[in-house]
This record gives sequence, C-alpha cells and structure tokens, in this order.
Amino acid sequence: MATNSGLLDRLMKGEVKMHELDDLLPPEEAQELRLLFIEKKHGFSLPKISSGIIASGSSKSNIENMIGSVQVPLGMAGPIRINGENARGDFFLPLATTEGALVASVNRGCHAINSSGGAEVVVLSNAQARSILFKAESVKRSKEFSLWVESNFSALKKIGEEGERFLEILDIVPYVIGLNIYLRIKASTSDAMGMNMITFAGKRIADYIVKDQAIRFISESGNLCVDKKPAAINLIESRGKRVLASVNLSEEVIKKVLKTDSRSLIDMNYRKNLLGSAASGSMGFNAHFANIIAAMFLSTGQDMAHVVDGSLGFTLVEEIEHGVNFSVTIPSLQVGTVGGGTGLPTQKECLMVLGCFGSGSPAGTNSLKLAEVVASAVLAGEISLLAALCTKDLSRAHKELNH
Amino acid sequence: MATNSGLLDRLMKGEVKMHELDDLLPPEEAQELRLLFIEKKHGFSLPKISSGIIASGSSKSNIENMIGSVQVPLGMAGPIRINGENARGDFFLPLATTEGALVASVNRGCHAINSSGGAEVVVLSNAQARSILFKAESVKRSKEFSLWVESNFSALKKIGEEGERFLEILDIVPYVIGLNIYLRIKASTSDAMGMNMITFAGKRIADYIVKDQAIRFISESGNLCVDKKPAAINLIESRGKRVLASVNLSEEVIKKVLKTDSRSLIDMNYRKNLLGSAASGSMGFNAHFANIIAAMFLSTGQDMAHVVDGSLGFTLVEEIEHGVNFSVTIPSLQVGTVGGGTGLPTQKECLMVLGCFGSGSPAGTNSLKLAEVVASAVLAGEISLLAALCTKDLSRAHKELNH
Amino acid sequence: MATNSGLLDRLMKGEVKMHELDDLLPPEEAQELRLLFIEKKHGFSLPKISSGIIASGSSKSNIENMIGSVQVPLGMAGPIRINGENARGDFFLPLATTEGALVASVNRGCHAINSSGGAEVVVLSNAQARSILFKAESVKRSKEFSLWVESNFSALKKIGEEGERFLEILDIVPYVIGLNIYLRIKASTSDAMGMNMITFAGKRIADYIVKDQAIRFISESGNLCVDKKPAAINLIESRGKRVLASVNLSEEVIKKVLKTDSRSLIDMNYRKNLLGSAASGSMGFNAHFANIIAAMFLSTGQDMAHVVDGSLGFTLVEEIEHGVNFSVTIPSLQVGTVGGGTGLPTQKECLMVLGCFGSGSPAGTNSLKLAEVVASAVLAGEISLLAALCTKDLSRAHKELNH
Amino acid sequence: MATNSGLLDRLMKGEVKMHELDDLLPPEEAQELRLLFIEKKHGFSLPKISSGIIASGSSKSNIENMIGSVQVPLGMAGPIRINGENARGDFFLPLATTEGALVASVNRGCHAINSSGGAEVVVLSNAQARSILFKAESVKRSKEFSLWVESNFSALKKIGEEGERFLEILDIVPYVIGLNIYLRIKASTSDAMGMNMITFAGKRIADYIVKDQAIRFISESGNLCVDKKPAAINLIESRGKRVLASVNLSEEVIKKVLKTDSRSLIDMNYRKNLLGSAASGSMGFNAHFANIIAAMFLSTGQDMAHVVDGSLGFTLVEEIEHGVNFSVTIPSLQVGTVGGGTGLPTQKECLMVLGCFGSGSPAGTNSLKLAEVVASAVLAGEISLLAALCTKDLSRAHKELNH
Repeated sequence: MATNSGLLDRLMKGEVKMHELDDLLPPEEAQELRLLFIEKKHGFSLPKISSGIIASGSSKSNIENMIGSVQVPLGMAGPIRINGENARGDFFLPLATTEGALVASVNRGCHAINSSGGAEVVVLSNAQARSILFKAESVKRSKEFSLWVESNFSALKKIGEEGERFLEILDIVPYVIGLNIYLRIKASTSDAMGMNMITFAGKRIADYIVKDQAIRFISESGNLCVDKKPAAINLIESRGKRVLASVNLSEEVIKKVLKTDSRSLIDMNYRKNLLGSAASGSMGFNAHFANIIAAMFLSTGQDMAHVVDGSLGFTLVEEIEHGVNFSVTIPSLQVGTVGGGTGLPTQKECLMVLGCFGSGSPAGTNSLKLAEVVASAVLAGEISLLAALCTKDLSRAHKELNH
Repeated sequence: MATNSGLLDRLMKGEVKMHELDDLLPPEEAQELRLLFIEKKHGFSLPKISSGIIASGSSKSNIENMIGSVQVPLGMAGPIRINGENARGDFFLPLATTEGALVASVNRGCHAINSSGGAEVVVLSNAQARSILFKAESVKRSKEFSLWVESNFSALKKIGEEGERFLEILDIVPYVIGLNIYLRIKASTSDAMGMNMITFAGKRIADYIVKDQAIRFISESGNLCVDKKPAAINLIESRGKRVLASVNLSEEVIKKVLKTDSRSLIDMNYRKNLLGSAASGSMGFNAHFANIIAAMFLSTGQDMAHVVDGSLGFTLVEEIEHGVNFSVTIPSLQVGTVGGGTGLPTQKECLMVLGCFGSGSPAGTNSLKLAEVVASAVLAGEISLLAALCTKDLSRAHKELNH
Repeated sequence: MATNSGLLDRLMKGEVKMHELDDLLPPEEAQELRLLFIEKKHGFSLPKISSGIIASGSSKSNIENMIGSVQVPLGMAGPIRINGENARGDFFLPLATTEGALVASVNRGCHAINSSGGAEVVVLSNAQARSILFKAESVKRSKEFSLWVESNFSALKKIGEEGERFLEILDIVPYVIGLNIYLRIKASTSDAMGMNMITFAGKRIADYIVKDQAIRFISESGNLCVDKKPAAINLIESRGKRVLASVNLSEEVIKKVLKTDSRSLIDMNYRKNLLGSAASGSMGFNAHFANIIAAMFLSTGQDMAHVVDGSLGFTLVEEIEHGVNFSVTIPSLQVGTVGGGTGLPTQKECLMVLGCFGSGSPAGTNSLKLAEVVASAVLAGEISLLAALCTKDLSRAHKELNH
Repeated sequence: MATNSGLLDRLMKGEVKMHELDDLLPPEEAQELRLLFIEKKHGFSLPKISSGIIASGSSKSNIENMIGSVQVPLGMAGPIRINGENARGDFFLPLATTEGALVASVNRGCHAINSSGGAEVVVLSNAQARSILFKAESVKRSKEFSLWVESNFSALKKIGEEGERFLEILDIVPYVIGLNIYLRIKASTSDAMGMNMITFAGKRIADYIVKDQAIRFISESGNLCVDKKPAAINLIESRGKRVLASVNLSEEVIKKVLKTDSRSLIDMNYRKNLLGSAASGSMGFNAHFANIIAAMFLSTGQDMAHVVDGSLGFTLVEEIEHGVNFSVTIPSLQVGTVGGGTGLPTQKECLMVLGCFGSGSPAGTNSLKLAEVVASAVLAGEISLLAALCTKDLSRAHKELNH
C-alpha cells in the first residue's frame, strides 16, 4: 500500500487522474483508492457507499471510476396472476423505489386483478430501432439514395447482421428531410434490450454504404431512433416492445377492492388521462406508467434512462357489462434479460424471482416474459391510482406516510 | 421466532399478507420474514438483496413490503468547475448507472468544460405545478368559474399555503376545455421537490372551492400538471426548475480534448438534435439528457420517474469567434435535497459530496445548487457524446466495453 | 391602347415585368394588360377569371399583379340560434366551399341546435400574439435580459402601443433557449385580426430595446407566436380568441334529428376525436373544425392560412341527464371584421348578413360576435358529422353527391 | 314566378326550408329564390354575391343551398422555372389571396430561383390514407385481429379496389390501442385528391370484415388518417404527396436579389424555423407554407381545409460552397386535378395556366405536376420571407401596403 499512498498524493496533486488507476492497480485496489481520494478531498468518510457488495472487477462493463454502490430499498408487491403469452402464473413484483405508497398501491392493483382472474397480456410488436444519418448533395440525390436503400435491403440486412448471433434486421426505412436521409433500422434483438447490437449493425451498414454510394455519412445516431427522448414516432409506430395488458373488473370487485364504481373509473380516466393529457400537449395518456416502470427497471437492471420511453402510452377504461375493461398500452417498452445491469448481484436475484434471468428458451422469450410482467405491474399501478383519485385519497395516502 | 415461524406458515397459506406483518412485528423482523417467505416460495435464497444496509424501520416513508435493497454501481466523474448562482467551485459528480462508458463520457465533458473556465449556469424559473380538476354544468359556468378563480387568487393562495412552512403559491391558472376546468397551481417549494406539498395544497384549495362554489370537484390531479409524463406544457412553460448551463469551447479545446472541430459539432447538433428530433415528433432536442439525469437522480435520492420530465429540452451549439457556445436548456428539472430518497444512507453521502444535503441556508438554495450541478453534468454529457458522434466513436466506445 | 400594345410586346420580351405595370398605367389598365399578357403567353383566353367584379384599384392592399378573381360557390346554412355574449339571435351562415355535403351537414347541425334552444357561446380569452427574437452573449445575459423585460413592461407596452389606436398590449413573456430570447407579445387588437398591428408594435419595441440594451435583435418573428403553423403553445395557452360553444342535446332530438342516440355519440367522440387523435400525435381533437372554419373564413374575408390555427381544439360529448352536452373548444381562432379581405365586395355582404361588418360598437365587439358565430357553426358541423359516423352515413352522403 | 312568390312566403314562414327548393324548382330558380329569401330576411340586397358566374346546376356536387359566389382577387406571380419530375419549364403561379405583399413576396422568390437555374423538385411518396376503426372484446382479440388483417391484405385490397378504376391500395396498417384497432388504409388515387375514393373503399373493406370476423365496426374514420387536423403521423410518415423542392442560391444572387447574405439566411432559418418552432411545440418548422398553399389551393380548386395538412413541414437552409441550398419538405400535400373544385370556371382556367387540368397522361401525372408546382411556389415564398426577416423588412412591407 506504500505505492497506493504515493498514488493518493499524486491524485491529490492532480498528477494522476482517477480513471488512470485502473491501469495501475487491480480493480478492487483502484476502487478503494478512488474512494480514499474522494474522502480526503471532502474531509469526511463515505462508509455507506463503500459498504456495498458489487465487485469493481465484475462490473467493468457497467461503470467507470467506480467507488462503491448506491442502495435503494426493495419492496415486494403481489403476487399478481398473469395470463400472458410468455408469462403465465403468479408473480411477485420486485419494486425498488423511494416513493412511499407506491408498493402498497401496486399491491392493491394486484389484488383487484387477481380477484378478476388475472391480467391478460399480449406483445404486439418487438423491434429495436436505430437511425443512421446521411447527407446528399441535392434533393434528387436524396430521393435516389432512399430508393437505392429500399431496393438493396437484403444486402444491407446481411451486412448489418454479420457476426451478430441474436440480431435480425426486419426493416430499414428512409426518412428524408431536404438533403438529410435518416435510415431507421428496425431489428429484433432476442433477450437483449439491444441498443448496442443495433448500433454496431448501423455502423457496419453505414461503412458499407459510403464505400458503395456517393453519399456523406453524418452520424451513427440521427435522433430518429428515438432513444431516451419522448417522441411521437415511438408512440405511434412503437419501438422496443409494444405491450398491452388488460383485465375485466366487475362492479363487485371495483366496489370491494377499489372502493369506487365503474362509472367513476371511466369518468376519471376520460377527464384526467385522455382530456388532461391532450390539453397539455402530452404523449403520456396515463396516470403514472413511469413510476412502476422505474421501480421495476431499477430492480431488474434495466437502463434507467429508458423510463422515458416507457412513460409513453395509454390507459383506457371502457364500459363492459357489469364492470369495466381496464387496459394499458405501452408502445415503447425497452427491456432485456441479458446484458446491461441484469447480471449485477441484486438485480440478478430479482430477475430470478420473476423467472426470467438470462437467455430464454427459446431465445428471446425471457425478455418477452419480462415485458409482460412489467406491463402487468403497470396495469396494477394504474388501476390503483385511478381508484384512489376517484375516492379523493391521493393526498391522504401520501400524507399518512410522510407525516 | 416460534411466532414468526407460525406466521411464515400462515403467509405460505395466504392467511396473512406480506403487508400485514408490519402490524404484527417490529420492522426488521417483518422484513426478515417477508424475505424468508419470498425465498421459500421460490425455492432459492436471495443473499444479495438481503445484504444491504438500509434499515427497514428507517425507510417507512419510502417503501412498503420491504425485503432488502437493490445495489447499483457508483462511479465518480469530475471534478467539474461550475460558475453557478448557487453552485460555485469544483464538484465531483456521483453517477449511479449500469451503462458502460457513461461515466467516462461525462468525465471527458468535464475536462473540456474545465479547460474552458467552467460551466456557466442559471436557473430561470422555479415552480412546482399541480393541476386540480373541476366540472361545470355549462360553458358559461366554466367561464364564470375561471374568472372567479382569478379574482380570488389571494384567498385561494392563503388556503393552499396553510400549515405549509415551505410552500409559496405563485399562480393559479385556469385551463378550460368544454365543461372541464383545470386549475394549474404553481408554487415554490424550497428545498423539497415538492409534489406532496403541492398536492396537499391542491386538496385544501379544492375543498374550499366546493364549499363556496357550485362546481363539481373531479380530481386531485388532472394531468395538466404534468407529472412524470412528457408534455409540451412543461417544455414550453417549464415546471420544477428551468436550468440553463453553457460553456464557450475554443477551437483549441475542441481539437485537443474532443478530437473534433467547431464546424462538426455545430453541424452534428443541427442535424441530430434539432432536425432529427423535429422529424420524429420529439420533445427532446438533445442527445441523452436522460442518461446523465438518471445517473445523478439515482445517486442523490431523487424520484426516478422524474427522469421523464428531465429528458425534455434543448442542446444548442452556436458559433462564436474561435469556437462554439455549447448550452443545454432543461425546462423541467425536478430535484430536492430534503424528503424523498435524499435521506437514505448512500444517497445522503452523495449529496454531502455535492455539498447540498438537507435544507439550504437560506432555505431553497440547496435544491437550486443541486439543479445547477445536474445541469452542468448534463452539459458535460452532451458535449462528450456529440463529439463522439463527430468522430464516429459511438459504437467503438461501447464495443470496447462490451466485448 | 397603342402604348399598352407596346407594353405587351415588352412584357413578352421580358423587358417589362408584370408588377412594373402598376407604375406605368392606371390600375384597371394594368390589370387588363397583365391578363392579356398571360393569355398570350399561354395561347388561350381566361374569360372567367376576368369576369369578376373586384376592382383592381380598390384591392391594392390585398394583392399584387392582379389579373382577375377566383369565384367559389356560396351556400347558406341555418338559421342557427346563438346565445352568445355578443352574437344573440338567429343567424344564417354563409359558407363558401367546394366540398359537397358540407352545407347540408352544417344545416342539419343547426337544426339539432335550434331544436335544443340554441348554442351557448363564450369567449374565454382574446389576445393576438407575436414573438420577437433576440440573442445574448451568454446564458447569464439571457437571464438578465429576460428579467429586464419583465421589470420594464410598462415602458415597452407604451412604446408598442404608440400611434396604434386599437392596440392594447397585455403581456410580454420571455422564453429563453440557450442564448436565444423570444419575447411573446400579447395584445388585444379590437375588431382587427391584428397581425399587422402587433407586428409593427413588435418592431417598435425591438428598436427601443436595441438602443437601450446590449442585445442583438434577430427577427421580427421568431416562430414562437405561432402564426399559421400548428403549435402546442396555441392549443394550450390560446392565441387570437379562445371560444367555446355548446348545446345540450336531448335524447329525443338526437333520435329525431340525428337518427342516433346519446351513447353512440359519446362513444364515437371518445374513440375517434380523443383516442384516434391521441394515437396519431394530433393537436386536433375534433372531427373537422377546419372544414367549417375554411368555409366561413372564405366567405367573410379572413386570412385563409389561419384555417391552420383554427383546426386545433376539442370536441367533447358528455353525458347529462336525458342526453348529452356537446361542446367545441377552439383555442386559437383568428378573426377580424375590419382589414384583410373583409372589405371586398362579396365578403362585405356576407359579414353584413352576419351583422358584423366593420368596427363594432363598442369597438371590438364585432370580431367577438364573428368569433361566436364561427364557433357555433363549427359546433353544428361537429354534431352532424359525428352523428353521420354513428349511423355509418359518411360514405353514403358523399357517394350520392359524387356519383 | 307566381309559384315562386308563394314559395317565398312559405320560406319566410318557415314552412319550406331552403334546401327543399331544389326538389321543387330548377336549380337556377331555386338559387334565385334562396337569395331573395335571404335578402328579404335581412332587409338589404346582396348584388355582389349574386353577380357571380357559377351556375347552380353545374356545381351540385360542390355545394348545397347555393345563393351565389364569393370572389377573391387573383394575382399572378412568376414565371418560375421548375425542374421537376413532372413539372418542367416556366410556370406562372396563380395566387388567390387577400394578404397584401404575398404575391410580391412569392414573385421575388421566383426571381431568386430563376436566377439560380430553377427549382429542383421531387415527390418522395404518394399515398392517400383513411383509417377505419374497430373494437375487439379483449386485447388478445385485438392482436389476433390485427394479425388477421396483415395476412389477409390481398383479399382486403381486392375488396377495397372493387369498382374503382383509379384506386390502388398499397398498404393496410393496424394500430392497436387497448380494445381499439385502427386500420390505416393507404392508397394511390391517381389525379384525384382521393378522400372520397378511399372513404368508399374503407367502407367496403369494413363491411367485408364484419361479415367475416367477430369484431365490431365503429367508424368509417377513426382520426388516425389524419385528415384536416395537424398530426405527427402525417409529418413523420407522410400522407398525400411528400414533396421536396430546393435550389442552390449563390452568394451573388442572395446579395443582389434578396439583399442579404448566406450566413444571415442560415442563421435566421435555424433560430426561427427550427428553434422557435421546437420551443413552441410546433409541427410546422417553416415560416409560412400555409400562406402560399392557401393561395394556390384557392385558385386551383383544392379543398381549403387541407391547408392544415400542408402547413406541416420543414424549411432548411444549408451551407454549400459559395452560397446555400434552400429546401422545403412538405410531407402531407393534398392536391388533385380532377374532382373537388377543380372544374369550377375560374379554377379550371388557373389549372389550365399550369397545364394540369383534368386527368394526366399517363393518369396521375397531372396531380404530381400540380404538387411540384405548389412546392416550388412554397419554396419561393419561404426564400423571400426569410430574406425579408434578415433585412428587417417584414413590418415595412406590410406597412407600405396597409397605410
């Protein structure tokens, strides 16, 4: 540790940078020294951050300049009965959150769903997307090039899939604005969320194109994907998985479990989730998709910035005989069961609880299963919050927890 | 533990529910028993989830049905020099993420910023918003009522602020759609993110109104707030804190640190962040605000669903003499330094590193400081990613980490 | 005419331009010669275009290079009973259109409205808007300048209103994106639609600002107005006149006049106008506002490009006892009864039929009256089309007319 | 006329309705009597409205309750040189408008374009769209049905095209929101704008589906078309014709004709048309597409409500060597050269001036030609207005005309 002490001095003097430690020391020592450095810089210790269980060496693909870990409380809702295409049976829902009342609220939604035979779930489409961007010399050339792309799909598909075992390119759609041509590549990516996979494919395709075509390659991402930004194209055309979950709630269940009635639920959804959202220029015609998605994403090692994409979508409450059909439509759900943070210690355990850690059998079914579970959890969350608003219990529920 | 063993049996039989344990046992025992139950149900143990340091009893306001904690690796970027109104000096940036390359990327951005004298940051507005929803009998009544609200602002403000030490109601704006009147209450909430505070205020105002006015109260939230859903009203009119951060990057810094040039940065930003986003119907005219905001929010105990609101906004790269002015405009940043997850063990330490844990002095300045730090981090992230796209390094950076 | 014949030769040779004729000849001769020139160029005569009654000299402020006039058939719907704030009584609706079935459809809507006691109409806000654009050197300066604008409102208002008898500036709101500051000037413009008036005011304000402030003036219009483009800011915050019209339709009227029932109307509106529009990323939550607005704007001399602004808005059908409340909310209706095309011969007659040609007494009431009439016509059009869709008569109605 | 006098009395008493006259009298007499009735009702005559040349009998498919015609001044801009795929050569542009300065402004744009060799124009896609709406009993059924539609495309296409000589169905895309399935039918419609044609096809398809499938047919139009409402789906995916027009303007032309320079044009377009539109939540990233489209649509007999669709789109000004590439991208241009108001006397003459009246040879080329001309005119209008803003001449130009 004499060396390390010398390194600490040099860190303090700015002669060595934090990230250079990884080249000089084994990962655990580098992490420890960085922590020491930060503590010394600030004049106090960080015992909690450093008490975590994540091994620096094992999470190299997840983070740089690691000094420890952040811990978020994990609550368990459910079980929830799911009648999906891949998720079938009763599932406990691991929710990592700091918003009091959220787990309890989802729990109540699960109760309502279970009392009604479970959630029906379907995945309508399943395609990751990445747009690569080119620039032409003239609008005529823009047109020619976009026609060329369409008629050379097979070749471009082959190039894109090269060396990728789990990538299947489904479509390449050109969008032309003046001299700018955005190629939106759509692909299935098996159990991975797939952004890296499709980014690499996009680069290969672009490299191939510039060799063959008189066109300027501008960017590996042209913001017509659209990743981690709210966008109408994702709401309308879907990206990642488009998932629908629904349940028929009888008047009796609505009364007994949710303490309200079908007319109130229908009316609340209409005025708040449809009309209020329309009047504010929103793309989220729902109450709080993002809350449940954030909590499920955090516990299962998903990319937290994809909560943005997941916040888009629709909650509908429609009259049926003796009750309502309550549904959620999530057009852009981004989930994976391999890669990302899915292999981290606590996240892996949460995925195991859901029965979908790692590659599915057949491949791709685990991420579909996870998508169906998340959508069911979202359904539970929407049911419960809508009901709480009907009975004017929103502020009461939060008040009890906070005061 | 004989009792607890009996309770476990009853849990397994479904005679007792997980959440009922909190009434029967001390919090730690309840947590332990829930974990045992989940483990027994699934037939395997969850040693990682249960190894955390968060005390069940201490986080009652954050979660229900707690069984342990989720751990996310924490990396440290920076320091970054910030010339803000509240954040002044050099700050290390705690980033909790599972996306490889993110910390390194922000780090590079910090380097570019520091080489240019630091980030200039201002907060342009600071007001939480909650909409409460009423229904009138006729459109004439809708108009009368909205005029009544405007002329009774002082009284409504007083009612709303009752008993709330840190809440100051700034405005109540009526939005009328047919028979529906949404009152958007705007308020400053000091160092708290403030949604609970303003929700309670909204309820008090609504209760007052229904006693006085012939109008039907529909909902404590009418989705014209807009919370945790992307919405044009937040992009245009702001909500929470509207923060701008910028830096003048010289041609030399751009070349040396970012390996590109000013023309490329300007062009990339134009084609990707403005044009690509416009062409996809997006509200996020930026590259990846959400990535940095998610990582900073997770480490500092913010509400993760608010990443959605933070994803809105603009990155601009504008020509100046011998370089560019690079700026980010974040119209709806939701942060607090008290409440929420800010008091959890690891999150508290991260806030201490930033020098803004708890109430500021004067009150409100800590959340402003945090907002300025987050915006500066976002600026760093945008600079680095834009530059990486200019040099076609996006896929390369991710490839090195993942393969 | 010898001279004119010589001029025709020179026009043919390109030595004289069409617009130069106005300096060489009296307006009618110039018009005649331009027509001759166009006819000679194409080798056929244009007897219909030249048969109109608009005097070239009298419409100098409406058009340049005039060669004649275009004629559009005018049909008359109604009368419609209106219980507005300014429009009170029975009104015939002049509709200039080429879309078969439109007049008949509006007519049926009028019948339904009249059978229900008339349309209730209110104007909720009334303010034209123009944004002028400035650029600062830094984001700190952006903030300073926007604060300066807010604290110098009185002075800026005075400058803006100078010499304008009918302009009253109500607000100047700064919107800051990085270094760009858009000042959205809001003003009432009496009976004029008011874009010219407010544009001149904006220019005066800008000229004053650049003399006083170290800031760069960029543009007399910064597209944050927003004029003649669909925009969320107009939908949410209104521009021009925000008008609401509604009627309570009894089950009996719905059955007798509209051949459907209240449940079908409610359901159709929900699925088409709300859900369908939301799912397509639309800002028009209505069936065909634009059809009626276009026909009324054409007959009354409004700016036809403002049909765009008028297309925004909401149609709601809400259950009441024994029927429905049917309403339209038009947030950005742009109308005037002076200026523009209102003084043209046929347009003046149409405005006279509506009793709102020229300046109102008191000033401003004629344009309010026109707004109320247009909104009532829109209400009629929406009622009829929604009903036709309920009875699956859309294609049938059009088929009969076209085949 | 004794009978007619009796009828007039009965009209005044309300015993006969205006529209019933068509069953009782020849069209011209019916029209005359309606006029008399309206005149008598109001106590003044309408000599201008009744002086028009449109024969009531000949425009039965355009209007009901006809009483005369509205006249709008027609100016002529150009010629403009167009290098399109269908429009090739020099074209005079008939513009019917009441907005002073518009013709002059377009004229200046034409001058700049001609000085640069003409406008290059391409049509990128060409497909009308109509959505029909169904409702399923469950989300599983929603999925099944949408899969069924996809696998039965050939049969549905055949049904839809039945009896329609000029309709070719290109695609039927299902959009599912909960229990609601919107089928967006896309079709080429030759020289017709085509809404009627595709509406009839939609009805046939729906009738076929309900016979075959257990699904409820809700509406002939589900607002996912989207017709006459601004919508992101039209901006992104196009509807009608997606047309691009551009021109390379040299620094010399910009200086001489437009009195400004390339840097100013680029900067103005960036700050106003891109940034200002983005900041206001607009779908129109342009200066005033709607102005030119309205004037061209009015003169050529298009549906004026389609100005809404035409207002969407992008103006780009991009640096090239020694100048700029100036382009407009109009994603949803709705034009036809047969049907609608194209056959009216003055409109027919305007179409003849453009060389695209009636069916093209081959069929479909006339509407493409018209689309290219309109796009070129839009290009001219954008060039001129942008330049006027650069030289701060917007208010000056309008002032001279109005005072």
